[in-house]
Amino acid sequence: MAIHIAEPDTGRQAMTDLAQAFSSVREQSCRLVQPLSAEDCCVQSMPDASPAKWHLAHTTWFFETFILERFEAGFRPFHPAFRVLFNSYYEGVGEKHPRAQRGMITRPSLEEVLAYRKNVDQRLLALLAQALTPEFGCELTMLVELGLQHEQQHQELLLTDIMHLLSMNPLLPPYLSSAAVTDAGAERIASALQWQSFEAGVIEVGHKGAGFFFDNETPRHRQFVESFSMASRLVTNAEFLAFVEDGGYNNPLLWLSAGWDWVAQQKITRPLYWQDAHAQFDSAWREFTLQGLQPLALHDAVTHLSFFEAEAYARWAGTRLPTEAEWECAAAYSGAAAGADYFGVAWQWTTSSYAPYPGYMALPGAVGEYNGKFMVNQYVLRGSSVATPAGHARLSYRNFFPATARWQFSGLRLARS
Amino acid sequence: MAIHIAEPDTGRQAMTDLAQAFSSVREQSCRLVQPLSAEDCCVQSMPDASPAKWHLAHTTWFFETFILERFEAGFRPFHPAFRVLFNSYYEGVGEKHPRAQRGMITRPSLEEVLAYRKNVDQRLLALLAQALTPEFGCELTMLVELGLQHEQQHQELLLTDIMHLLSMNPLLPPYLSSAAVTDAGAERIASALQWQSFEAGVIEVGHKGAGFFFDNETPRHRQFVESFSMASRLVTNAEFLAFVEDGGYNNPLLWLSAGWDWVAQQKITRPLYWQDAHAQFDSAWREFTLQGLQPLALHDAVTHLSFFEAEAYARWAGTRLPTEAEWECAAAYSGAAAGADYFGVAWQWTTSSYAPYPGYMALPGAVGEYNGKFMVNQYVLRGSSVATPAGHARLSYRNFFPATARWQFSGLRLARS
Amino acid sequence: MAIHIAEPDTGRQAMTDLAQAFSSVREQSCRLVQPLSAEDCCVQSMPDASPAKWHLAHTTWFFETFILERFEAGFRPFHPAFRVLFNSYYEGVGEKHPRAQRGMITRPSLEEVLAYRKNVDQRLLALLAQALTPEFGCELTMLVELGLQHEQQHQELLLTDIMHLLSMNPLLPPYLSSAAVTDAGAERIASALQWQSFEAGVIEVGHKGAGFFFDNETPRHRQFVESFSMASRLVTNAEFLAFVEDGGYNNPLLWLSAGWDWVAQQKITRPLYWQDAHAQFDSAWREFTLQGLQPLALHDAVTHLSFFEAEAYARWAGTRLPTEAEWECAAAYSGAAAGADYFGVAWQWTTSSYAPYPGYMALPGAVGEYNGKFMVNQYVLRGSSVATPAGHARLSYRNFFPATARWQFSGLRLARS
Amino acid sequence: MAIHIAEPDTGRQAMTDLAQAFSSVREQSCRLVQPLSAEDCCVQSMPDASPAKWHLAHTTWFFETFILERFEAGFRPFHPAFRVLFNSYYEGVGEKHPRAQRGMITRPSLEEVLAYRKNVDQRLLALLAQALTPEFGCELTMLVELGLQHEQQHQELLLTDIMHLLSMNPLLPPYLSSAAVTDAGAERIASALQWQSFEAGVIEVGHKGAGFFFDNETPRHRQFVESFSMASRLVTNAEFLAFVEDGGYNNPLLWLSAGWDWVAQQKITRPLYWQDAHAQFDSAWREFTLQGLQPLALHDAVTHLSFFEAEAYARWAGTRLPTEAEWECAAAYSGAAAGADYFGVAWQWTTSSYAPYPGYMALPGAVGEYNGKFMVNQYVLRGSSVATPAGHARLSYRNFFPATARWQFSGLRLARS
Repeated sequence: MAIHIAEPDTGRQAMTDLAQAFSSVREQSCRLVQPLSAEDCCVQSMPDASPAKWHLAHTTWFFETFILERFEAGFRPFHPAFRVLFNSYYEGVGEKHPRAQRGMITRPSLEEVLAYRKNVDQRLLALLAQALTPEFGCELTMLVELGLQHEQQHQELLLTDIMHLLSMNPLLPPYLSSAAVTDAGAERIASALQWQSFEAGVIEVGHKGAGFFFDNETPRHRQFVESFSMASRLVTNAEFLAFVEDGGYNNPLLWLSAGWDWVAQQKITRPLYWQDAHAQFDSAWREFTLQGLQPLALHDAVTHLSFFEAEAYARWAGTRLPTEAEWECAAAYSGAAAGADYFGVAWQWTTSSYAPYPGYMALPGAVGEYNGKFMVNQYVLRGSSVATPAGHARLSYRNFFPATARWQFSGLRLARS
Repeated sequence: MAIHIAEPDTGRQAMTDLAQAFSSVREQSCRLVQPLSAEDCCVQSMPDASPAKWHLAHTTWFFETFILERFEAGFRPFHPAFRVLFNSYYEGVGEKHPRAQRGMITRPSLEEVLAYRKNVDQRLLALLAQALTPEFGCELTMLVELGLQHEQQHQELLLTDIMHLLSMNPLLPPYLSSAAVTDAGAERIASALQWQSFEAGVIEVGHKGAGFFFDNETPRHRQFVESFSMASRLVTNAEFLAFVEDGGYNNPLLWLSAGWDWVAQQKITRPLYWQDAHAQFDSAWREFTLQGLQPLALHDAVTHLSFFEAEAYARWAGTRLPTEAEWECAAAYSGAAAGADYFGVAWQWTTSSYAPYPGYMALPGAVGEYNGKFMVNQYVLRGSSVATPAGHARLSYRNFFPATARWQFSGLRLARS
Repeated sequence: MAIHIAEPDTGRQAMTDLAQAFSSVREQSCRLVQPLSAEDCCVQSMPDASPAKWHLAHTTWFFETFILERFEAGFRPFHPAFRVLFNSYYEGVGEKHPRAQRGMITRPSLEEVLAYRKNVDQRLLALLAQALTPEFGCELTMLVELGLQHEQQHQELLLTDIMHLLSMNPLLPPYLSSAAVTDAGAERIASALQWQSFEAGVIEVGHKGAGFFFDNETPRHRQFVESFSMASRLVTNAEFLAFVEDGGYNNPLLWLSAGWDWVAQQKITRPLYWQDAHAQFDSAWREFTLQGLQPLALHDAVTHLSFFEAEAYARWAGTRLPTEAEWECAAAYSGAAAGADYFGVAWQWTTSSYAPYPGYMALPGAVGEYNGKFMVNQYVLRGSSVATPAGHARLSYRNFFPATARWQFSGLRLARS
Repeated sequence: MAIHIAEPDTGRQAMTDLAQAFSSVREQSCRLVQPLSAEDCCVQSMPDASPAKWHLAHTTWFFETFILERFEAGFRPFHPAFRVLFNSYYEGVGEKHPRAQRGMITRPSLEEVLAYRKNVDQRLLALLAQALTPEFGCELTMLVELGLQHEQQHQELLLTDIMHLLSMNPLLPPYLSSAAVTDAGAERIASALQWQSFEAGVIEVGHKGAGFFFDNETPRHRQFVESFSMASRLVTNAEFLAFVEDGGYNNPLLWLSAGWDWVAQQKITRPLYWQDAHAQFDSAWREFTLQGLQPLALHDAVTHLSFFEAEAYARWAGTRLPTEAEWECAAAYSGAAAGADYFGVAWQWTTSSYAPYPGYMALPGAVGEYNGKFMVNQYVLRGSSVATPAGHARLSYRNFFPATARWQFSGLRLARS
């Protein structure tokens, strides 16, 4: 939930800008499903993932429930059942359809969901065009911004969920044709790994300045960080392959105890989308990507690792994962430098469990369920990935997933004391 | 698998008739999915059920694999991956896609599967139009007949699987509009229950005469049946409601031990599609049907019962389920009588576990996997249901499901010694 | 439950004989636990098995609940909590301790349970010494006989449950010292397999004559049996080893579909207690027995097979399992012949699911729960095993277990049509 | 693992003291099982708990494997199989018996395990009596100290595991007679809750000074702690009862999302050992304790809470759990004050996930597996409980359990920002 120290601007021009941002984000969601059929959009590949159609509907539900229902005169829901059907986890809003059954919803159809989007979009834009009291305008602006950030989060999930679904199909269909990928075939060369040192001291951590932020990034507060070094770039596929070929997945001494149990039970032997194609192809390793099955790009950052895999790799390499505070400190210093890949490539696992900052308070009301209630048994990832929408990333952003989650574009950056 | 004592007729007229039957059955499958969207056809609602699209593809795979691959000159598969993707359980044919993941197959699309059907249909019809040696013609005819019977079985499953999927959707969408149901609103009155007695003696059981049959109906053999009586009609919803209201689901003494465990663990309190709508509606009980949610039709036969529920009801009523042999004996005598509902209403659970008849032999080859390997921990149902395709039912037909299966149109007819 | 056509003899001598039989059976149970420590007697190795102490207490509970509570003047329970604690599955008697938690009962101690036995024994013997009215005497006699047969069943389970527990201990401790086994080292040679033929016809099946029987053996009734042949002896370890070495556990075409799923999921590759000791020992196969780990006795009957394994072996051998009726017919003819091993070696799986005989009726009251409610998803075994108490076996005896059960002394005898 | 900055004293007197400490700790373990039978000591009540006999053997295995095997001339194991049987989780030591099957080990008997203890004790004492080189003496001393601390941890687990086992027995037998409890009947009155404030600033956290410590308490390092207040005493049963009676277990808004799922699935409605005895007794709530079932002691600290329950209570009370650093800061200040209950009553959940301190390094070798590999998905508890052995607690001690663990004496102390 967004907390703005200063009142947001609710002047006419500001509202026009907001309307434009609204339209742009909403259209982008629809663009993401253009390469997909209604069938692709309907199926749920695992309880952790959601159908693309559900993402399209749930983000719309968010605007309808938290904004239209509150601000629109004579509000009537688009469809009474949608309130339950597309509620994700807001206990304060009432009943919700069970998460694991999101894939059963063949009706409403994709077409109907797109009509639902259109309807809510029009009503939302009409609302923004109205003259509002400053008080209402302020709250409305904050909620619309929250809704757009929320939708951008679902855009990334939509991509990773679709990728997981397609990976379950033995035909391994691509999401995008290779032609759509501009740099296909371009050989990238990873830079040499360097270590950047940081002195011990008290630093500030958390959101600062203007612009949107989630409540979990606040309050900005002080932390003492002992001296540490941070790697100049992400770990590559080639480097991770050395771990695999060194028997990394077979050596219990490299793993956390719970990680070793997971590896053994799930028979994990490589990153989620790698395929050992020695038998079928001339060259060895392939990776399923949004462009279908491709030769493993050795110089690219390794992705689709669980926390357990990232942590084991770091131990094997004689290093460790950074803490959130270390990451934020290093990224603040060198994040924008040429060649730095803090953002836009792969989410980076930290060793920090997802916990409230000192003095953290969830806002009252249902939107207060956005972040705080997930602060247990999850680990923080920092940065952003190739799938993160433009403009959505920032220094203080805290992404989080359980230690076994692998279907995000999750990699790692090494640290050492 | 069909076993014909006499050689089938492979003359020109016979082949023309076969081609016509082929087209008719194949078209019927496509007709069944006309009320459905591609999304409806894609989703798998539980491991026991399959997506409609999978039914359409698998029945086509059956013709392609067991007939075209064998008889067509210069055979080339429509798509090499389909051999694995749409193999249900034939170990003799090689790899198969895991049953529980049939719903992941968003590609091929419904459209592509319909094209697959068209392609195989054309090639099959071309084959039937050829002049064949009598030997080949004979085997071809037998396999085509088997394929058509196989497709009819899947037509019934397609309906019950779709019904289950729609029942998982909180919107409870109907498969058919009520308007499509000719007798909607027509009040049926169940006839009075009467008991038909049969003397003890040796009877013959199993397939007799010309016409198609599955291998599990053979060999026809003798059984000694002690004297028994059979109910003149099926148990009705009203009668089963009396069991419910008498606390039938709460009394362990009425249940088989494993049935009671199932009732307790799954919290079963009524037939699968019944809804206790006292709170929401004026009248009490509703039932989800192919026409959506409807008032419970008290005079209709109760359906969607597990073996356990049927068996407990019979005990509560001071009676029992019939054996297969008793059912076949009684149906042979009175099956065609006016008012008899041995066929076309509801499959009838028997107390007979699904087992080979004395001297049963599965045929060699992959088609021999059709029946025999399922002969354990399943119970036989006799008759046929409203969802059984016309012409598919017969006296010696043995349907079978596990004791907990409820999503078929399964009811019961009482017997007593 | 016993049904006696004629009234049992309740004269003084008869009652003295009954008291003697009572003491003898009760002492035998205590003898069985003499090689065991209190710890051995307390632990439950799997939900299907029970601790030896529980067997000792439950069989006592049976006499206390069904006899003393009914016939003893001024009855007071030995311990009020035992009524629930040692109830196995009698819903008609009230609450029962959950089966899977029988191993949690470290108190009462083994010593206290033995005191419980002693107390109930004394009171039961006092009852038998009383002068009773014929009517009471008749019912008492029947219940005591039932209790003794019940205890003998638990004596066999006690042995197989203890054997399973010891097999879970990496030390593989023997139940008996090898010295206690008189024929240790005696080389047995299996006789040549011969086939005994039987003509088709109506036979009678079920209990006949005087003596005790369970309700599931009745009513004696007619069955038509087609002609068949039965093997002259049980399948041996050497014969089953040939199946193993021929890849029997790796070939899905030899298995029922549910059996193949079980083999694959549980990674079954051999009979329950076999160990492939090629790596550790000079000779290859060993078997865990009541005398600890022993070289596999190639000429002995194979035991500890599931129904699935027995059925697959029979298919591999080009034969099949017999039905109950076939087994009873053949055993009646040749069961007592020299060399015949119908009894006393291994229970023999039949292809018959456990079902009520025509006209079967469970007796009223809690003892009516003894048999009937288990008649689903179980398969009948006939004969008796090395672990069956002397005098407990008979021609019409129906043992039954699920298709996956392996911890009994269960083997097979082949049949063919 | 212990890290001593200074060399430990290995002079003669020091070694005599160490031998005395050794004997004292070892005897205490045996004293703990004196109220128990061999049966009590053998059974495992859940995978998380271990049998008392296993605790006795495993702590002995620790001395034998890590000390005797290394230092004893002509070392021969007491029993070769024990190396595997009583290895808990040390991958570096080789094979280990599966954790969930510790209760299957009826052999060796309790008596044999006590003999094993005696044998190892004698050999260990003989070793300590030898003249050793300073280098060996130093390492030996460190390992013996580690072994004793390890044994003390298992003494607490032995008590909580036994308590759990007894709680599974419907007879609810006490571990101790009430007579053994000196203050039984003494009415305690909880003091009024007060808040102690602490200023923001950099503090030092982690082990300081001489004396034993585990590696997870190091290195001592700086943390910035924002200002906070800490409660003067633990939350009482009476206070927690108010939460229960206010519907705390029924309100999803009070719980972490994963906590709410856990409450719903496991049907949790109260602390682990509470019993709602309104129906059976005159007064309402009872609690199962080491003295058996007792009236709920309203003024005592609430115990046997999971992290989820503690966290939900804190939210309900408008407060929060402290972090580790806050706890250590407050305990350092007021821990020894009169009335302070930082130690000796109940472990106190913190909001800190169990993670390595900055610069943490596990020692090389198998003893390095002691702590580090468990640093994921667990939460830290601070202080000590009634079950903690005398002398085992200290300011920097970090206990840890998963968020659902309830069978320890775990309670909470409130904090606020």
